[in-house]
Amino acid sequence: MPAPTSFNNYIDTHADAFIKRLGDAVAIQSISSDALRRQDVIVMGNWLNGQLNELGVETKLVDLGTHEMQGQTLQLPPAIIGRLGSDPAKKTVLIYGHYDVQPALKTDGWKTDPFTLVVDEDSGRLIGRGSTDDKGPILGWLNVLEAHKNLGIAMPVNVRFCFEGMEENGSEGLDECIQEEVKKGKDGWFDGVDCVCISDNYWLNTRTPALTYGLRGIAYFSINITGPGQDLHSGLFGRTVHEPMTDLIKLMSKLVDHNGDILIPGIDDMVPPHDEEELKLYQKMDYTIDDIEEAAGGKVALSSEKTTVLMGRMRQPSLSLHGIEGAFSAVGAKTVIPAKVGGKFSIRLVPPQTPEKIIPFVNAYLEAEFAKFNSKNKMEIEYLHGGKPWVADVKHWNFEAAKKAIEAVYKKTPDYTREGGSIPVTLTFAESLGVNVLLLPMGRADDGAHSTNEKLDRSNFIEGTKVLGTYLYEVGAAA
Amino acid sequence: MPAPTSFNNYIDTHADAFIKRLGDAVAIQSISSDALRRQDVIVMGNWLNGQLNELGVETKLVDLGTHEMQGQTLQLPPAIIGRLGSDPAKKTVLIYGHYDVQPALKTDGWKTDPFTLVVDEDSGRLIGRGSTDDKGPILGWLNVLEAHKNLGIAMPVNVRFCFEGMEENGSEGLDECIQEEVKKGKDGWFDGVDCVCISDNYWLNTRTPALTYGLRGIAYFSINITGPGQDLHSGLFGRTVHEPMTDLIKLMSKLVDHNGDILIPGIDDMVPPHDEEELKLYQKMDYTIDDIEEAAGGKVALSSEKTTVLMGRMRQPSLSLHGIEGAFSAVGAKTVIPAKVGGKFSIRLVPPQTPEKIIPFVNAYLEAEFAKFNSKNKMEIEYLHGGKPWVADVKHWNFEAAKKAIEAVYKKTPDYTREGGSIPVTLTFAESLGVNVLLLPMGRADDGAHSTNEKLDRSNFIEGTKVLGTYLYEVGAAA
Ligand SMILES: [Zn+2]
Ligand SMILES: [Zn+2]
Ligand SMILES: [Zn+2]
Ligand SMILES: [Zn+2]
Repeated sequence: MPAPTSFNNYIDTHADAFIKRLGDAVAIQSISSDALRRQDVIVMGNWLNGQLNELGVETKLVDLGTHEMQGQTLQLPPAIIGRLGSDPAKKTVLIYGHYDVQPALKTDGWKTDPFTLVVDEDSGRLIGRGSTDDKGPILGWLNVLEAHKNLGIAMPVNVRFCFEGMEENGSEGLDECIQEEVKKGKDGWFDGVDCVCISDNYWLNTRTPALTYGLRGIAYFSINITGPGQDLHSGLFGRTVHEPMTDLIKLMSKLVDHNGDILIPGIDDMVPPHDEEELKLYQKMDYTIDDIEEAAGGKVALSSEKTTVLMGRMRQPSLSLHGIEGAFSAVGAKTVIPAKVGGKFSIRLVPPQTPEKIIPFVNAYLEAEFAKFNSKNKMEIEYLHGGKPWVADVKHWNFEAAKKAIEAVYKKTPDYTREGGSIPVTLTFAESLGVNVLLLPMGRADDGAHSTNEKLDRSNFIEGTKVLGTYLYEVGAAA
Repeated sequence: MPAPTSFNNYIDTHADAFIKRLGDAVAIQSISSDALRRQDVIVMGNWLNGQLNELGVETKLVDLGTHEMQGQTLQLPPAIIGRLGSDPAKKTVLIYGHYDVQPALKTDGWKTDPFTLVVDEDSGRLIGRGSTDDKGPILGWLNVLEAHKNLGIAMPVNVRFCFEGMEENGSEGLDECIQEEVKKGKDGWFDGVDCVCISDNYWLNTRTPALTYGLRGIAYFSINITGPGQDLHSGLFGRTVHEPMTDLIKLMSKLVDHNGDILIPGIDDMVPPHDEEELKLYQKMDYTIDDIEEAAGGKVALSSEKTTVLMGRMRQPSLSLHGIEGAFSAVGAKTVIPAKVGGKFSIRLVPPQTPEKIIPFVNAYLEAEFAKFNSKNKMEIEYLHGGKPWVADVKHWNFEAAKKAIEAVYKKTPDYTREGGSIPVTLTFAESLGVNVLLLPMGRADDGAHSTNEKLDRSNFIEGTKVLGTYLYEVGAAA
């Protein structure tokens, strides 16, 4: 069941007002990782809460307590839990979004002030921090609510909301908040939720809408090597002691091959090979090697085969070497033998991998390799953090509803994608509620979410709002 | 010919005043690498110049011009050229020292204020920045001058001085200054110099005085790998692109083995093996594996054979991996794929190696290894700086004089050592004057020259002053 024509018309005729409201949201510098901006994050939460209330949503602000950051004890911005409608005849959709943003300074390389939404009439871009991540999508939902309220038509589903202000800084306190709300059962606001919709990722390209059904997990490690009691001078000590850097670099060189293969035995093997049907999914994706090389800013794709590259990102684990803590990292030429170095690397995981399953392989391999060196230095493998991967059933009515909505608005079949990164709250919802979770991106691959000159295309905001509304109608009509 | 008894007595009876003067020098924060302290370096130069003049030394301050540092154009501290005596019947000794120091902050881990000389009565340590590097040795020469002036006895040799204030920051302008002075021939102040004495290094241990006849050279490189146009997110790009870090770590792992062997073909081979006589020199050195492990602060010596470790430091090249510029180096767990990384390493050189001779081997090897990766990234090998190694003839009368002086004062035969590091001015004097250069250390191995709690033992300062004076008498008496 498509959305009523009046809904789509309302969205079109109120587009400028929607963009103005997005400008109001972008103007609030809700940077969650900057202690000096914490008050702005809270202001943003209150602004959003006020908008929801005005549009008829009942809300409660959940106090997530305090945390330590940058040497200060800071109040966490509230989680906003909301509800609209309790008709037992209707399905109930839980919507998630985050109202905090990444840091942004004009001097980082922004062409315009990051916190003033600029409408570029030529390109149709709405440029500003948070435009696509994640204020644009959140305001898409507000647009849907406003249209229904002002048109005087009932929402096709019951809606529940969960908005947070700490996503860009570890989502402190959110998991517990969700789990507690779920635990309340009938007394909780998440009771009866039939599915979840999260709009906080991006199309695979700039042309074709996408539905996302998978996320990679991660396990992040540091190989710590110690030996000398303090940093040494390479003139005085070169070729007299076991240098921690020599051991570390040799160990790090044994983790991943230049073709991307993971050299730790047992990791790549853990993932079953794709079948013919899955291969077709990748072949069908609207994607080229040019797309990835444009996104990467260099002609460095690991393969000239689009399916190889796409599977490398979506359905294979990957191992990246991030850097070394404790070594000389500045400009110049310091002749130091660092005494204590930590080599950082992480493995992106896909089902059936989990951090728990792969950690023993990592430890056993590194310990065996290090033993071969006969080094007098000490090695310790530190597991810094991790998260499980996630894959959803794309044949579920939740995905079917989104597919129909995209086809109705964009006249295109969506790409079915898996993200290479992680959105931890996805797993929290999937596991605590036990329902299907859909990732329904609004923006495009080139939006520059965490980068300079972040933008959301006007058409993605406006047509994307129609997709969100239509999706609710399709969910409402699902058997 | 030993120094007159009256000289040695003067040194003993004036020890406290000498230490007080060292305190005056330490109190001037002449940190040459800190733009905010540049004026203090100049103040220190003027202080030293005043001392020299008072002790009868004719001086000229050579303006070395300006340089760019920390975004500012800064006046270079002057070189101080001095002369005392022009008796054609006497030998002429050129003395070098530097009046600038390394940075020091109490918060670095100093137990006392770094710029207040503390006399620890229990240990006999004189603790303060510059106490051993290199204000102590410079003031040793002032002590010698003062004794002669106040005792009314003539110096046994003509003396020339060359003091600089930029040694800890690249000796900017000094080479040119020395070469110009030499070029002036009869009109220059270095005319007729018979030998050079530099006191700016350390004993091999804490027990036995040393004479140093060799220094390693250095060639410092950065392997620069580029590919993506900007840093990438490992979730989005892991296993889709050639990661610069993967290539860099693999290349760096091929440079040096965990036993210290240099893996670049042609480098280790360039050095002729030692003969029996040389081996005996190393066996005789007052040195143990415990000494090196105590100095390194950990049980990490590459061998349990003292001769192997000593030769590794003194007569073999070494390769150290210093760190990576452009990679993630902070605390924490950032999931970045760095776009542009520079792996820093340097090779310490011994004769007949020179930077010019080894660079082609380094380039050819790295290029061949990188070609094997079939990487789409770009590699560039950057040669950052270098210097030749140096070895002197220990049978020269200059060394013999110093040996006799040490035997007279310390009643011990000195260790004949080669330093693993470099003191570039040594080579400048040796090459421009064509005379024998002697390195005559005053301090001990554990002085902590560039470290926290730098010290000079009182006995090294006072007995060391006697050694400097006696050395001049032995030079004067040399055939
Ligand atoms: Zn986001
Ligand atoms: Zn984000
Ligand atoms: Zn020095
Ligand atoms: Zn120094």
